[in-house]
Parts: sequence; structure tokens; C-alpha cells
Amino acid sequence: MEKQEYWGFKENHDLNAAAAFTIRNILQAIMENIDESQPLIHLGHGDPSAFPLFRTPTIVEDALVESIRSAKFNCYPSGVGIAPARSAIAKYLSRDLPYKLAADDVFLTAGANHAIEVILTVVARPGANILFPRPNYPIYEARSRFSPLEVRHYDLIPEKGWEVDLDGVKALANDKTVAIVLINPGNPCGNVFTSEHMKKIAETARQLGILVIADEVYAHQVFGEKPFIPMGVFGDIAPVITLGSLSKRWIVPGWRFGWIAITDRIGILQQTGIVRSLTSCLTITADPPTVIQGAVPSIIANTSDSFFLNINKLLKEAADILYERLNEIPLVACPYKPEGSMFAMVKLNISAFDDVVDDTDFCMKLAKEESIIVFPGDAAGLKNWVRVSFAAEPEVLKDATGRMKAFCLRHAKH
Amino acid sequence: MEKQEYWGFKENHDLNAAAAFTIRNILQAIMENIDESQPLIHLGHGDPSAFPLFRTPTIVEDALVESIRSAKFNCYPSGVGIAPARSAIAKYLSRDLPYKLAADDVFLTAGANHAIEVILTVVARPGANILFPRPNYPIYEARSRFSPLEVRHYDLIPEKGWEVDLDGVKALANDKTVAIVLINPGNPCGNVFTSEHMKKIAETARQLGILVIADEVYAHQVFGEKPFIPMGVFGDIAPVITLGSLSKRWIVPGWRFGWIAITDRIGILQQTGIVRSLTSCLTITADPPTVIQGAVPSIIANTSDSFFLNINKLLKEAADILYERLNEIPLVACPYKPEGSMFAMVKLNISAFDDVVDDTDFCMKLAKEESIIVFPGDAAGLKNWVRVSFAAEPEVLKDATGRMKAFCLRHAKH
Repeated sequence: MEKQEYWGFKENHDLNAAAAFTIRNILQAIMENIDESQPLIHLGHGDPSAFPLFRTPTIVEDALVESIRSAKFNCYPSGVGIAPARSAIAKYLSRDLPYKLAADDVFLTAGANHAIEVILTVVARPGANILFPRPNYPIYEARSRFSPLEVRHYDLIPEKGWEVDLDGVKALANDKTVAIVLINPGNPCGNVFTSEHMKKIAETARQLGILVIADEVYAHQVFGEKPFIPMGVFGDIAPVITLGSLSKRWIVPGWRFGWIAITDRIGILQQTGIVRSLTSCLTITADPPTVIQGAVPSIIANTSDSFFLNINKLLKEAADILYERLNEIPLVACPYKPEGSMFAMVKLNISAFDDVVDDTDFCMKLAKEESIIVFPGDAAGLKNWVRVSFAAEPEVLKDATGRMKAFCLRHAKH
Repeated sequence: MEKQEYWGFKENHDLNAAAAFTIRNILQAIMENIDESQPLIHLGHGDPSAFPLFRTPTIVEDALVESIRSAKFNCYPSGVGIAPARSAIAKYLSRDLPYKLAADDVFLTAGANHAIEVILTVVARPGANILFPRPNYPIYEARSRFSPLEVRHYDLIPEKGWEVDLDGVKALANDKTVAIVLINPGNPCGNVFTSEHMKKIAETARQLGILVIADEVYAHQVFGEKPFIPMGVFGDIAPVITLGSLSKRWIVPGWRFGWIAITDRIGILQQTGIVRSLTSCLTITADPPTVIQGAVPSIIANTSDSFFLNINKLLKEAADILYERLNEIPLVACPYKPEGSMFAMVKLNISAFDDVVDDTDFCMKLAKEESIIVFPGDAAGLKNWVRVSFAAEPEVLKDATGRMKAFCLRHAKH
């Protein structure tokens, strides 16, 4: 057969460019450097499910097993999710709101990453822009690269416990701005916003005519002085869309179950057709399995507070260990002790290193020499910082920080 | 507070237009007509999981339960899927190919619908076109509406058992054509291609410089004279991408587990970067849950042939009942007895109806008057036909066809 030389299909460079920004791909590049002479310690992602201390309770496994054995949830789900699961999440979220969400206010997704994909797809249009925090959770930038959406970054101010630079937000926004994304509790910074600050953000969003995308995947995972307050509390000031999932609070990121909640008391998201567009997007994108949706009412009803309290206690202990030990390491500094989520941002004193040129170089060399994975801050928007997860058992964190100290001493200028 | 009148975010009409085309949305519109004076019989979708006769075997449930209880699969998966699951699917597909697929040739998706989303996203670019069958499975059109991809339809010829009009394909294609989609066994027609015909299709694709997207969700679900032959057998003639899932063969559409397999012996999909683009797309879209992926090796290894044979026997019996009884109903005709999948296409003699104007009207009135759901052929590309599922228990099909007969008699011209 003669050689076919022309093919009508082509590689998709836009997809490749978008994927390059994802945590997955960045961590994969770092992982390729791993030497394996020591046991790998992976502090590059927020996934403690491998540690026995962080296992989801039996009652949660039971709920999924029951869903399977009932044979009632093997069917296709509707795009928005099955009613009992929507209802369970609506009730769950309403516990912390001054109003009651209806099942119809809740849309089920294949994890919060899918929720992010959906909401960005909905609001994107040529010429529009969106406001992201700097530093950020990079999946937002990755998805935006594959949408007609211009990204503008506002600063989180390290000296103010990573609060939002509201003046910066106002300067960035214009009449083509669609939304502001907030992550609270914060990834990558581990910060928790105060009620007063959140109210000001809502008021600013209102003035600017934009919606608030409140990424609350780490909801309730707070262990400092500040309580967790859902942004939906201020849903009477600005239209708020809340994203969440089972992944972090229940330690089951592999179950891929999340939600988009319309915590909008003004009703603007309904009126402007955003809710209809969300429903449309869910109709043409992936679904969380019905069999997992079937387990959700039991999961929500039966997980004890003591499990959640215990996880927060473990996270607090871990955050304390990490913070204390990082600040004993020359050449790095953790200026803000995490109060929530599973991450801390750590500043590198690059000029004091002999042969480490930036945060990416730090991560590559640390992986190679010490088999430790941390995430380069440049990919999150802050060059020469690194993001370190503390969602691990205490001994692992002590081992990791010990190896990091050895690494820094080895690479310090003399 | 002063009334905010300008909002920067807007409804997404492109998403709404795309979603309107989906089976879900079309069926929902029909369902709204349901009277509920009789028990609902839903023959509008290929989902027999509600019928006890069609339940997935215990061994499959066991596999998922074991995956859950092991606590080894609660972690994030990689975008392409976890190695044991990829490997299991590669071995499974290789049973019917003249070569062995590697685990790296298999990419895991949240069901075949997600696989369709991914492959269309990858090949879409401004100015490109793609060839779909008429009639088709409408999710292809729905997703294409939301991509830069012009859709061109080639005919499946009813008089030739729904074979592909290859002359039509050649006339439609140009140097911007990226691919041809084939569904075998066929949805909505219930046809099965012969080996000779599939080879001709592959040769045509080769000449035209396009790839073949072989949608094989109904793989092995054949019960007539023609065996099921995977298009990948001809992967040395043209580059073939095979889509599949657990949904139909294992009767678990609610588990949302599917795959994209690179059944391309020429290696062109690797060389041209299509495989890289697929990987990129999977990195930024939803994943099938790790906990379900963890069950896949057991599911593949332990499901007995007798289960599959029994399901095919049930489908054959059902197809026979439907075909026979439909052809007893005046005003409709089923010209081609289904040999595979779960669907039959039924032609309406519209001019013989008194007050039914087209297929959509037929479906709406049938839903209202007889509580039966069938799918309007216009949405699949063939006006004045309807698609009827036979994936139901025999008594249900007899009841349904009885009601359809009463409906037709009632609406016939005199």
C-alpha cells in the first residue's frame, strides 16, 4: 500500500499548553527526577488517603457498599445529579447558612475539579476576564487556557495573613469581568478569611457587578483561631457560587464526588440564565457515578463529628510540626502558620543558595537528592516560594523536614 | 443597598444550544408530557439496569466492594487512569485483536460519553470537519456544537441493512476532514457491520487521510448472524481509535467507566501527536473514580461468559418480540430486525395518521396518552422515524407494543 503522507487530523497545541499548567503534569516532571535511594515522601499534593491515620471511616465505606448491593444505582444519572444526593448536600450546606438551600440549588460533579471546569466553561466568552488569586490552585489557570477567558490576578498579601488586596481587585476589574475566585480555607496558603474580610469581598463584588466563585473544598478543615465561614453567608450581598467535594473532608479524593451550589439570595444567577447554562454544561460533560451518588445521603447523615474533629486535630498537629521545623531550616521561611486546608507556602531565600536558581530548580534537586516532592510556587503564581503539604503522618513530616534541612545546608553559599 | 443592574457575567447560549441536542434533554421534554395514568414504560434509552433480569452479576459488585474495603483506591488517579485498570482493559480488548495492546494504549474515561467528549475536543480546530453517520447517537452532535468542528453527515442505507454509503463519504470529505465516526454494533439502528464492509471503510479512511473513531460501546452484544468484529482489526489499514465502556455489556451505566484505546498499528496517532493531545485533554477533564478503576481487573477477569451469553439471549428474545409486534402495528414499520445493540429504528407512516404531524409529535402524544417513551428519530438525524429500545423484560415489551398499537389505531385516518 502506498504510504499515506497527508492526514487531516492534527495535534491540539491548546490542549497541550493547558495541560502543562496542571499540578499533575508539573508533579510528573518532578517525579521523573526521583532517585529512589530513599523512600519517597510526597508533599506535593493534598492527598493523605495513603496514610492509615487519615482513612475514611468504615461508615462511609459501608454507605457505598450498600449503594452497590441495592442494585438501585446502576442506572444513568441525570446531568444535575440524582435527587436524594442533591437533597443531602443541600441540607448539609444549609447547616452553616442563614437560609435553606433547595435540592435544585445543588448540582453534582465528578469532584471539585470538574466543578471548576464547568463553572469556567459557563462564564467564558470572548473578551471576558476573570479574577484569580495570586498565588492560586493552578487548575484554574490550566482550564482558563482552554477557554475564551482572559485571566487577571489579584494579590493575596503575605504580610496580612494572605488577605485579598481589594484595591488591587477594584483596579483590575472592568465591565468585561465575570467573576472573582476565592479559595477559603486557602490553597496554597493555608489561610482562613475572617468574616469581616469576606463581607468586604462580597461588597466589592457587588459594586463591580461580578459573581463570587467560592472554592470551599477545604470547608471546615480549620484548626487555628478563625472559624470556617462559608461565603454563601454573604449570598445576599453578591451572587455566590460555592464549590465543594467529599474529597478532603472525607479523605476520598479517588471517589470523585463534588458539587456546585447556588448560594445566591439575590436570585441573579437564576435570572441571568447562569443556572440554566450550568445545567446545560453538566448535560454535555462527565457525571459522578450514580452508584457513588447513591451513597451520599448515608455518608452525610452518618459520619460522626468525632471523625472530623480527629482529622482536624491531626492536621493541626501536622501544621505545627511543619511550621516549627521549616523555620529551623536556614534558607527557607514559612512566614504564615497554616490555619486551614492542607498546605503551607514556604519562601526560599534563593540568593543564599549556592547552586539553586529558583523554586523549580529547588523542587527538581530536592526530588533527586532527597526523594521529596514539593510543589514549585511559580506554578501557583509566586516564584521562589514552594507549596508544601502537611497532610501526612507526624513521623513522615519530621523525616521530610530533616531531609530538607540537610539539602539546604548542602546547597548553602559559604 | 442600591439595585445592581449591570452584571459582567452572561448566560452561555452555545452551551444551551448544545445541551438541547442531547438525549437527556429531549427525553426530559417528552417525560414532561407523561400522564401517569398507566405505569411508565421507558424505551427511550439503552439502560436495562432497572430490570432484575438484567442485573450485573454479584461477582462484579464484589469486585467494587473489595476495591472499597482495601482502602487502596481512595487516592487521586492519574489523568490517563491507574496502571492495573489500563492493563486489564488492554488485555481484554486484545482478546479480539490480531495484536496485543499495551496498557499505554488505553486511556480511561468517565464512561463512553466522556470518551466522546475527549476525542472530539482533541480533533476539533477552526475549519475542520468530521463525518458522522445519519442516523447517529446525538451526543456527537451535541458535543460538536460546542467545539470548532463542522459536522457532515454520511448516510447509513436502510435498504442495505444500514451499511455506510461509502461514495457519500468520499464526496463529503476534503483535506480539512479529521475523522469518520462509526458505531458498531449500531446505535440507533441495531445493525452489525460485516468484516468486508469494515475493511472497505478502513481503506476509504486511509485514502482520505482521516482517522476512524470506532464507537464500540455495544461490543459483543450481537445476536443475529453477524459476529462482532472490532474495527481495531483493521488498525493496520487506517488509524483507529476505539471507544468502549463497562456500561452496556456489564449493565452498569451508572458506574461511568469507559476507555479510549489506540488501536492503530500504523503508529500515526502517536507520531502526529494525537495521543499526546488525548493525554492532555484527560489531564484537564473529569476522571472515573479511582475506587471504580480499582475494581476493573477483577471485573474483567471474573465475569463469566455465561453471564454475557445470557444477556445476549435476553436481548435476542427482546429484539424478536419487538420486531414481530411492531410489524403487526399499522402505520409503523420496522424494516430491519436488530442484530445487535439495544435499539431498533421504526419508520412512521405519517401520512396515514390523522393528527400526528411528525416523529416528535408522535413521541409527545404517545407519552401523554400511553405513558410510553420512545426517542424521536429527527434528533438522531432521521425525521419521521423513532428509535425504540428493546432492553427490557418480555412482558414490558408486549405491554408497550400493545399500547402503541392502540395509539396508532386511535390516531389513524379513516
